[in-house]
Amino acid sequence: MSRCDIGYHRRMARWQPDARGRLEAAAFELFRERGFEQTTVADIAARAGLDKRTFYRLFGDKREALFSGGAHLEEVLVKAVAETDATPFEAVVAAFRRVAEDIFADRLELVRARQAIIASSPELQERELRKGTSMVAAVSAALRAKGLGETTATLATESGVTVFRVAYARWVAPDSDAPLTDLIAEVATELRAITSATG
Amino acid sequence: MSRCDIGYHRRMARWQPDARGRLEAAAFELFRERGFEQTTVADIAARAGLDKRTFYRLFGDKREALFSGGAHLEEVLVKAVAETDATPFEAVVAAFRRVAEDIFADRLELVRARQAIIASSPELQERELRKGTSMVAAVSAALRAKGLGETTATLATESGVTVFRVAYARWVAPDSDAPLTDLIAEVATELRAITSATG
Repeated sequence: MSRCDIGYHRRMARWQPDARGRLEAAAFELFRERGFEQTTVADIAARAGLDKRTFYRLFGDKREALFSGGAHLEEVLVKAVAETDATPFEAVVAAFRRVAEDIFADRLELVRARQAIIASSPELQERELRKGTSMVAAVSAALRAKGLGETTATLATESGVTVFRVAYARWVAPDSDAPLTDLIAEVATELRAITSATG
Repeated sequence: MSRCDIGYHRRMARWQPDARGRLEAAAFELFRERGFEQTTVADIAARAGLDKRTFYRLFGDKREALFSGGAHLEEVLVKAVAETDATPFEAVVAAFRRVAEDIFADRLELVRARQAIIASSPELQERELRKGTSMVAAVSAALRAKGLGETTATLATESGVTVFRVAYARWVAPDSDAPLTDLIAEVATELRAITSATG
């Protein structure tokens, strides 16, 4: 049977254990080594010992291989928001602290490398912005599911996301050493002070 | 002389009064009539009585014809932030109220039509997100120029942008009739209440 036979490829794809994880790891390695622009989907598939067809079965495009962690992050956030009795803004801040502990802690070097790859490409920056929008929608929906109005849910979520973004930027900065969860708590306090200050 | 001669087109372009405004108006009309996807740059140029070359001299791509107002909005915001003595968050909220009065008031129907066009295309949504990022950077730089630290500048700007976005969404909603500047003041009060509430 020829390797070009479609059935052959389908069966190969089906037999690969953790094809997704291997493709993500290969993409990350290649983006670091060669740069995002210089890496093709064929390169990624080859490094993972798979084929392009398998890649496109699992990812919409080359960018997506760098963003699939977003779904897990969203899940953890939504679950944390649903489980707490805190006020809306506190609930979102607590959810991001949960994410900081469960997903980001001990991964600072990987996160820094990933941010450097994203910073290198306007296309990746656009995708990151869209993923942020999807995260806001998911968290806001989780707050509404607790009976909150749309405005309250949106304001609490956006404020929490702002806190997370500023804390995250501090955390990945070259000279940082504080844990992300502490930075989130600190920045939340700063946001409270800034929004409540009157002239 | 043939119309295909490059010198002819260059001179035509140079002679057009307000080519930019005419192309923007033509793009807006066509996007409303036919949809964004169904409109080509050639269509836009023809409607404006100009040529494609003139379009590409003034706009990077088709999307850009819908976003050039962003530069003016940024200017008004930056100037308003620079001129006030209010606290950082109040300064940003006041700047958005200035924008609401100087740019948006009396343009609700146009703004609604523009939002409907943007909502129809993921490409336009991505561009809008990027413009938002650029606006945040400009306002935040204006606050830093007043001597504020980076975190304070970012938190005040992002919080102000959140207020503006929520107020703007309410304003363009089909059943709304309150002025945008009042909605901004209202939502700013809600954000203050939400971020300061503790459980």
